Amino acid sequence: MTLPSHGANPHYLYETLNLTVPEDVIDFSENSIPTGPPTLLKERWDHWYNAISSYPDPEGRNLKILIAKKHQVSESQVLLGNGASELMMTALRKFQGKTVGVIHPAFSEYERVIQANGALTHPIYTKETMGFQPDDEEIHTFLSKAERALFICNPNNPTGIRLERGTLLAWLETAEKTGSTLLLDEAFIDMAGEQYSLADYIGSPSLIIFRSMTKMYSIAGLRLGYLLGDEETIKEIGQWLPHWNVNQIALLAGETVLQDQHYTDEVRSFIRKERSRFTVALHDLGFKISNSAANYVCIQPPDPQQTEALWQFLLRKGLVLRHTYNYRGLNGDWLRVGMKLPEQNQKLVEAITLWAQ
Amino acid sequence: MTLPSHGANPHYLYETLNLTVPEDVIDFSENSIPTGPPTLLKERWDHWYNAISSYPDPEGRNLKILIAKKHQVSESQVLLGNGASELMMTALRKFQGKTVGVIHPAFSEYERVIQANGALTHPIYTKETMGFQPDDEEIHTFLSKAERALFICNPNNPTGIRLERGTLLAWLETAEKTGSTLLLDEAFIDMAGEQYSLADYIGSPSLIIFRSMTKMYSIAGLRLGYLLGDEETIKEIGQWLPHWNVNQIALLAGETVLQDQHYTDEVRSFIRKERSRFTVALHDLGFKISNSAANYVCIQPPDPQQTEALWQFLLRKGLVLRHTYNYRGLNGDWLRVGMKLPEQNQKLVEAITLWAQ
Repeated sequence: MTLPSHGANPHYLYETLNLTVPEDVIDFSENSIPTGPPTLLKERWDHWYNAISSYPDPEGRNLKILIAKKHQVSESQVLLGNGASELMMTALRKFQGKTVGVIHPAFSEYERVIQANGALTHPIYTKETMGFQPDDEEIHTFLSKAERALFICNPNNPTGIRLERGTLLAWLETAEKTGSTLLLDEAFIDMAGEQYSLADYIGSPSLIIFRSMTKMYSIAGLRLGYLLGDEETIKEIGQWLPHWNVNQIALLAGETVLQDQHYTDEVRSFIRKERSRFTVALHDLGFKISNSAANYVCIQPPDPQQTEALWQFLLRKGLVLRHTYNYRGLNGDWLRVGMKLPEQNQKLVEAITLWAQ
Repeated sequence: MTLPSHGANPHYLYETLNLTVPEDVIDFSENSIPTGPPTLLKERWDHWYNAISSYPDPEGRNLKILIAKKHQVSESQVLLGNGASELMMTALRKFQGKTVGVIHPAFSEYERVIQANGALTHPIYTKETMGFQPDDEEIHTFLSKAERALFICNPNNPTGIRLERGTLLAWLETAEKTGSTLLLDEAFIDMAGEQYSLADYIGSPSLIIFRSMTKMYSIAGLRLGYLLGDEETIKEIGQWLPHWNVNQIALLAGETVLQDQHYTDEVRSFIRKERSRFTVALHDLGFKISNSAANYVCIQPPDPQQTEALWQFLLRKGLVLRHTYNYRGLNGDWLRVGMKLPEQNQKLVEAITLWAQ
């Protein structure tokens, strides 16, 4: 039996497990913001119909200008992608035959794109006892060899653990000395706050940042992400991207959401509240819960051997959590929970409480 | 001065030429069907808003089933793409270090994806005097060396010239003997008719077919294409595609348009009528016109040295034709014209008549 390698699309999961899909399913297995896209999108949706017939601007210039402005970088340091996943797959072509480190637990796509591009994976494990923070010395040692690359997810997916800027900057310094590269995945950083981003260091030839616009703005269906890097890196990676790679609706949606300044603040405050309510409730039941800065947490029941049973119990109730079997270092002992709307989270707390009793 | 390498997005063209954009612009430089998408799309558009928040099915299973059924192939012989251009860029990874032929004039992306993937381009020229049909012997000779690949566009972009199935099948036979591969771009074949497709030969390890769904269904903004090949080829190329590569709206649109059986027949009959009216009118003015099976034609004024002047004359009137400077073998001596609505085509005929007098 092969479980789906990602969250979302829960029908595949029920199918694989040979379970009937319950009438009501709440999908806690994906990480997007549950409050839905900024309302401006709905208002404009009708007008966008006419845009589907024209080719998108292959440069996505209007959106690129807004992104460059947001991060105070130049447009030539921005590459738009059909989701961050396209940019990861494409950027890794740079590292064919090289060694690329992955800090585990990690988004399973890292290993897939490393492998697909003929690079070698070097796993680096974090420990729960160290708060899932990587061992600083191990990272420096890894980066001190020439022409390596290191995938870093900040905040981490699946744990939500955030790394300090000071830590990252020290790694960047080491990478710069040896011509190595930090592949910094900031797909969820806007959930924590822009002040934690390393975007202000773009220009360094040792730094590539991946950003997703689909989680914060709840537009995963449209596919939209971008990559920040120095101009030369952008040119090199850009040559491997297909023409017209970002669709018209994603471009229009991206331009629209970046005009709303208050949205992200409101979302962050919503996230903090829900995550904290959920954390308190599960602590009370004796669960472990990762110290997340994002819209999701990893949880573990008092007896980790019962994680699978809990997962199956909840699945049968239509509450879909994300298994962690393909997250190295978690090995199924934890479950990832994306925070949903208050009443949905409450339903989950009640079901877990019922199970725990 | 570098002219844009593709049609569509005419503002880039006016900008490069330092021309003011006229108030009314009709873009004859792109090749999609001018009658707009099937009406079912407009009816469903409102409902699709809710789909933008969920991740698309990474397998695009529903759409794949419909495509497999349409071509009577198995689902494992279909790969969905973010436009055919993504599939070309990705498929060419198979041919790194190999020699890939291109029959000119040709879609400029072929050379770009060959180059980006570290393969070697071998140009094969067709002649106007031979009706832009490639020299059969030259093709067989090219394919008779092992492990080569050959880009073939049927019907051709930009001329619209269609190749006979018999010709193609003989090439396929030669390719099969030497382990070479036909990279058959059928982006415009539905404008000519499915009976000209080689889809019924899918299963041969020497045949890869690229299909676009954006031209016939006028959804270039959504990006949607697919690749047909034998199962092993599909697996190999699929490993290089990013996860969730086709957006949710493109999947839904694809599923919707494939349910309308009459649409393509109606479109083909519309195309034939408009193309034939336009051809007659331009013949009367002494122009050369390519014998196109698609929704576009290549035209040349009686004095080919006047092509540039005609192009500029029309541009100033807001009638944007496609230059052919980056089509090898045409070298700017021709202009490509995508057929638009009857009244728009009429406007173009009148403007050309005015210029010719």
